[in-house]
Amino acid sequence: MTRLLINNGTFVTMDAQLPQFEGWMAIEGDLIAGLGEGSAPEQEKSRATEIMDGKGLLFMPGLVNTHGHAAMSLLRGLADDLALQDWLQNHMWPTEAKFTGDDVYWGSALAAAEMIKSGTTTFVDMYDHMQRVGEVVEQSGMRASLTRGVIGLCPEDVQKAKLADAIQFAKDWHGAADGRISVMISPHAPYTCPPDYIVKFVEAAHELNLPMHTHMSETIAEVEQNVRDYGYRPVEHLDRLGMFSRPTLVAHAVHLNDEEIALLAERNVAVSHNPVSNLKLASGIARVPDLMKAGVTVSLGTDSAASNNNLDLFQEISMAALLHKGVSGDPTVVPAAEALRMGTVYGARSIGLEGIVGQLKVGLKADFIALSISKPHFVPHTDYVSHLAYAARGSDVSHVWVNGKQLLKNGQLLTLDEEKILAEAERCFQRLRG
Amino acid sequence: MTRLLINNGTFVTMDAQLPQFEGWMAIEGDLIAGLGEGSAPEQEKSRATEIMDGKGLLFMPGLVNTHGHAAMSLLRGLADDLALQDWLQNHMWPTEAKFTGDDVYWGSALAAAEMIKSGTTTFVDMYDHMQRVGEVVEQSGMRASLTRGVIGLCPEDVQKAKLADAIQFAKDWHGAADGRISVMISPHAPYTCPPDYIVKFVEAAHELNLPMHTHMSETIAEVEQNVRDYGYRPVEHLDRLGMFSRPTLVAHAVHLNDEEIALLAERNVAVSHNPVSNLKLASGIARVPDLMKAGVTVSLGTDSAASNNNLDLFQEISMAALLHKGVSGDPTVVPAAEALRMGTVYGARSIGLEGIVGQLKVGLKADFIALSISKPHFVPHTDYVSHLAYAARGSDVSHVWVNGKQLLKNGQLLTLDEEKILAEAERCFQRLRG
Repeated sequence: MTRLLINNGTFVTMDAQLPQFEGWMAIEGDLIAGLGEGSAPEQEKSRATEIMDGKGLLFMPGLVNTHGHAAMSLLRGLADDLALQDWLQNHMWPTEAKFTGDDVYWGSALAAAEMIKSGTTTFVDMYDHMQRVGEVVEQSGMRASLTRGVIGLCPEDVQKAKLADAIQFAKDWHGAADGRISVMISPHAPYTCPPDYIVKFVEAAHELNLPMHTHMSETIAEVEQNVRDYGYRPVEHLDRLGMFSRPTLVAHAVHLNDEEIALLAERNVAVSHNPVSNLKLASGIARVPDLMKAGVTVSLGTDSAASNNNLDLFQEISMAALLHKGVSGDPTVVPAAEALRMGTVYGARSIGLEGIVGQLKVGLKADFIALSISKPHFVPHTDYVSHLAYAARGSDVSHVWVNGKQLLKNGQLLTLDEEKILAEAERCFQRLRG
Repeated sequence: MTRLLINNGTFVTMDAQLPQFEGWMAIEGDLIAGLGEGSAPEQEKSRATEIMDGKGLLFMPGLVNTHGHAAMSLLRGLADDLALQDWLQNHMWPTEAKFTGDDVYWGSALAAAEMIKSGTTTFVDMYDHMQRVGEVVEQSGMRASLTRGVIGLCPEDVQKAKLADAIQFAKDWHGAADGRISVMISPHAPYTCPPDYIVKFVEAAHELNLPMHTHMSETIAEVEQNVRDYGYRPVEHLDRLGMFSRPTLVAHAVHLNDEEIALLAERNVAVSHNPVSNLKLASGIARVPDLMKAGVTVSLGTDSAASNNNLDLFQEISMAALLHKGVSGDPTVVPAAEALRMGTVYGARSIGLEGIVGQLKVGLKADFIALSISKPHFVPHTDYVSHLAYAARGSDVSHVWVNGKQLLKNGQLLTLDEEKILAEAERCFQRLRG
């Protein structure tokens, strides 16, 4: 079996035992097989089938993007700075209605290229034509948690067909791509799915033994509508429908009261915080410090490139570290290390992958990235955790590995044809717009 | 005289007449000599002494960073996530007290390297040992508005010496480096300078016919102290001291009431908005949409790398476009084009350089940058103004010109020795920390 030894590198592990050090790491097959401070022992050197010089590179766990719609990268910049309903009803939905499986494939490939190049190794994706997203994950070598997001505002027979599609996708793809793909079950949101329809998804998730994912409380209007239509705010509503009897990840969770935060903590529901998208769509600012204080696992998502407008998780990390300080008036909330955990180990925890990815630790999957740090914005060499949270950008990422396989080398994609993807994505967009 | 023709480029001009197009631009000496849509006319091709293929590149005005302390890049990551007074009194000030001219030189060189590489061509700098900053500007080829920032909480003889130093610096350096350097006069802030001392700076600014720059209303505590000590909030206080009889740029202006906004507009005072620094230090969120509605010129500053922690003005542009939407709940405020103007033409206007830099327009100085756009996050080719505001990063900048001279080529600095600067900055930091 191949055994890669990385020597003389700077490591930020996201592991409390050995947080940052100069040292070495060994990768055997798809696993992290060794890790230590200082120069690699002679024994490690002799066992290695390949030795890489880590000088000038910072190694850390690959980033985990816990909410997005990859195919919507085709809609980047199509419409900005508009009121939410105008944006959705007059721009997003009419264009998305024309999406074919081909569009989903190339839009998702565009997103995968951008994510790999900016250091994301695992992503959550909720969309339609999910088998085409699965193909992109298979080919790109990334890790993903995929879910057919179902909008249930439709006749009963269409509802049935969509639920069947979501279940079939789960059966076909959960555990696929050497285990790099896992599947979640997703009614799109409480405001787009009638309660009895949501219950059917909860039942399916129990039968399939899979976690659930949904949009929740992104806007205040949504929360008010929920109270009007069903008598409860979204958290209690979903709890009553049984969703939180499954491991659940909710995206956004911007508008929560204290009781809802307590209930999310009690039910061990994870939150995907999407600060850039929430700001851009003027949805509001999630109560992240309160969620964390209550013990809720908070991770980070970009949402789609149509409301971001990039998929650079380092921007979400710095935004999370910055925004809540300014809003709360307390410069000690969401410190740098916590923001980085949100983008790595908390992301893994949110989708059931803690202890598998999200840290550099012996026995975990070898999902990691290397940033080039011989650059002005990484000098002086004070605290790399601070530099990663506040000064780094996705473009600092030079190398990416997932499951021990290298996907990016010196900024070049090894598994995807970038030039072809850019051209095909542009072609798809021109057809959709035409 | 040399005449550079750039052909087949994408241009975003920040000029209302011809906002974005595919075309050509000619540079003669230090000026933009021609600009047009489509392929360059034969006459242009024959006049050119050099022709550059602009395919895959987006050309736009160089960015203008209107508030910072370049030398403090040496303190990047030294102390984060602390309460403001702890940060200042226990970390920043004790370390800065040890700064020598050598530290200021290498810290400013580090900042210049980072700024050029991320597309900033003009910067405002307020610090001490300003002649060493002037040397960096001279050598780097950048454009700058420099000012000796004076803290007046000291005995009268020290006050006198500092004022004399500020005046001497202005006499020696205003108009230096082929006119690339201009000078402003700066009492550091109303809370660090007694009123009669501020008046002396106003008198000096009148004598020298120079604009003024100061920190103002960064924190709520500062505003309250001003009212306690002097009976007025900072805007009225500075107005009564005569400062606004000079063209003035104030940094931060986070805590303003309606009357103050109206007075700033009436006096034509420009505001340097520093959103990232204000968030990181938990100072608050400036009322930018209200300032703009009142007609105040609002530009963007990074502040120093100690409170940012990088000098990437594209991050300030996207932050300005995002933050005020989320805070106001209105997704139409600070639209993409306005955020880009804040980083370019409004920056120029803030420091008296409108009509000289900040736009691509015939007759203006050739201060411009080129971004590589054959990348996933610039696809599809919808609206480049949107992509620049929301998707771009400083690392997309490949080429930079100031005054017609190229400072960055394919990401490599042409006027500064990057490797030496990184090593010297690290050396300075280790000595300061030791």
